[in-house]
Amino acid sequence: MAFLMLSYPERVEVFRRAFARDLPSVPFYSDATQVDPHAVRYLMTWTFPDDLADRYPNLEVIFSVGAGIDQVAQTPVPPGAKLVRMIESGLTSLMRDYVVMSVLALHRRLPAYLEQQRRHEWINLDFVWADQRRVSVLGLGELGRASLEALKPFGFQLAGWSRSPKNIEGIHAYHGPDGLRTMLAATDILICLLPLTNETTYILNAELFAQLPRGASLVQVGRGKHMDQDALLAALDSGQLEAAFVDVTEPEPLPADHPLWSHAKVVLTPHIAAHTRADSAAAATIANMQRILAGKDPHGLVDPLRGY
Amino acid sequence: MAFLMLSYPERVEVFRRAFARDLPSVPFYSDATQVDPHAVRYLMTWTFPDDLADRYPNLEVIFSVGAGIDQVAQTPVPPGAKLVRMIESGLTSLMRDYVVMSVLALHRRLPAYLEQQRRHEWINLDFVWADQRRVSVLGLGELGRASLEALKPFGFQLAGWSRSPKNIEGIHAYHGPDGLRTMLAATDILICLLPLTNETTYILNAELFAQLPRGASLVQVGRGKHMDQDALLAALDSGQLEAAFVDVTEPEPLPADHPLWSHAKVVLTPHIAAHTRADSAAAATIANMQRILAGKDPHGLVDPLRGY
Repeated sequence: MAFLMLSYPERVEVFRRAFARDLPSVPFYSDATQVDPHAVRYLMTWTFPDDLADRYPNLEVIFSVGAGIDQVAQTPVPPGAKLVRMIESGLTSLMRDYVVMSVLALHRRLPAYLEQQRRHEWINLDFVWADQRRVSVLGLGELGRASLEALKPFGFQLAGWSRSPKNIEGIHAYHGPDGLRTMLAATDILICLLPLTNETTYILNAELFAQLPRGASLVQVGRGKHMDQDALLAALDSGQLEAAFVDVTEPEPLPADHPLWSHAKVVLTPHIAAHTRADSAAAATIANMQRILAGKDPHGLVDPLRGY
Repeated sequence: MAFLMLSYPERVEVFRRAFARDLPSVPFYSDATQVDPHAVRYLMTWTFPDDLADRYPNLEVIFSVGAGIDQVAQTPVPPGAKLVRMIESGLTSLMRDYVVMSVLALHRRLPAYLEQQRRHEWINLDFVWADQRRVSVLGLGELGRASLEALKPFGFQLAGWSRSPKNIEGIHAYHGPDGLRTMLAATDILICLLPLTNETTYILNAELFAQLPRGASLVQVGRGKHMDQDALLAALDSGQLEAAFVDVTEPEPLPADHPLWSHAKVVLTPHIAAHTRADSAAAATIANMQRILAGKDPHGLVDPLRGY
C-alpha cells in the first residue's frame, strides 16, 4: 500500500512530514519512479493521464489537490476508483476573505470611487444601507456556505442557490431553475461559487444578467468557463450591471489586449482568490485517509453523475 | 424645556418623528426662530457659535451629530453645559464595514493588483496567511473596538492602542508612549481611528511610519489632520509603506492637483467611510435623553480635559 503525491516540492514536503508524523502506517511517495506501481492505492494530483488504470492497477482513490475537479472532467477515472475534491480550511478561508472583501467593496461602490480617483473627483455617491442590500451566492458547497456565514455579521439580506434543496440558518436558500429566477430578481450583489459542470458552463450569460435588477454587481470567483465575458462587458456598458470583481477568466492568463483589463467597472485579479494551503490540506487529507481506512466515505467524494 | 436640532431636513424629520413617538414629553424644534431661547436646554448641531451661552442661557447639553467633536474643539462650551459625541450603531457599522473592506484589500494586496491591472499584467504576488498578519488599531473607542471585533473571524493577529489601559478579549491592548512604540514595531496593517486632539494631531508622520516594519500598510479613517500627507507619500515612495487606503484628507475636498490622487499605492475615497444614520442616531439620542432625564451621564459624554 502506498500514497503517491504529485505536486510542487514545497507542498509535497509539508505532506511528507505530516504523513510521517500522523499516519506513519501509510508509506508516502512523491517520486513515481521510486514506488512499485502495484502498491499505489492512493494518488494525489491535479490532472492525470487517460491510462491511469494501466499504470496503477490497484488504485482506489484519486485526490485532487484543488477544490474543483473540472480540470479532469474529460479524463476517465479508472473503474472502481473514487475521485475526491480538496476540502480544507486554508483554501476555504482564502475564498471567504476574497468574497467578503469584494462584496463590501461593491456594496460601498469602490469601483466607482476608483474611477473618481482616476478623475481626481471628490463626490459622495448614493448609498444603500447593508440591511437593504441583497447578496446572493450561486453554489452552496463548502465555499459558498463559508462565504455566506462570514457575510452574516454585516447585516446583508443573504440568499443562496443550489441544484438540490438546502437548509441554512439565516439564509434564504433557493434551488432548481425556478428558484434561480426568483433569486436573481431579488439580488443586488451576485457571487459565483458553482462547480464547473456541463450544466453550469456559461451560466453567467446575457440572459442571466438580464434577470438581475438594473445596477446589480457581480463577484466571479468560480471558473473562467462559467462566464460569457462578452456578455459581462455588454451588461456593464449598458448599465445593467454596475461593477464586477473578476478573479477567473477564459483563458488564463487573460491576453494583454482583452477589454476586461481596462474596463473602468471591472476589478480584475489573476486567479488569486483561493488556493490550497499545504499544512491544512495535509491535515484534511490525513483525516480523509483515516476515514477511508476505517471504511467510511471521504469528505469531498465526487458523484460521477453530478460531476462534483 | 426644549430640544433644538439644527441639521439637514431629511435627518431632522426622522428625529422629529422619533421624538414624537418615543419621547413626547420633550418638545422638539428644528427652527431656531420658532423656539423661546430660554427654553432650549438641549441642542443638537455640528458646529456652534462662540456666543452660545448668551443665546441659550439655560443650555444643559450639546449633542454633536457626528462621532467626532474636533470641529468644535476651538469653540467654548458654555459653563455648566455638557458636550456629547454621537455613538450610534449605524455610523459604527459603516466604519466597521469600511475598515474590514480595506484591511482585507490590503491583506490581499489589492492596490498592487490594481496596478497590475493598469499594466495588463497577470502575476501572482507573494502572499501572507491571515494568521501571520498583524493588524493594529490606533484608538480603542466605539469605532476601534467594533472594527477589531469584526476582524476577529478572519484570523488576523489583532492589537489596539489607546491613551489609557484597556482590556479587550482576543486583542493585544497597548497604551501610552511605550506601548505605541512596541505595537508599531509589530504591525503590518495600521488603522487610524483616533479622536483628533492636540496630542493626536499629525500623529501619522515620518517618525511613526519609520517605526512600522518595512512594507506595512495604512488605513486612514480618522481625521485629515491626523496625517502628514507628505510623509505618507515619502513612505510609499521609499517602500517603507506598501499601500494605503485614505478616506480623510487635509483639506477636504482634496485639491484636484494633489499628488495623493494619482499615487499608484493609494486608494483614496472622499470621506465616505462612515456617517450618522438618522434612524439609529435618533434612537440613540432618545435613549441618551432618557439617561439625562433620569440623572445619569449620557453615552459619549466628552471629558473637556481629555478632549474626547
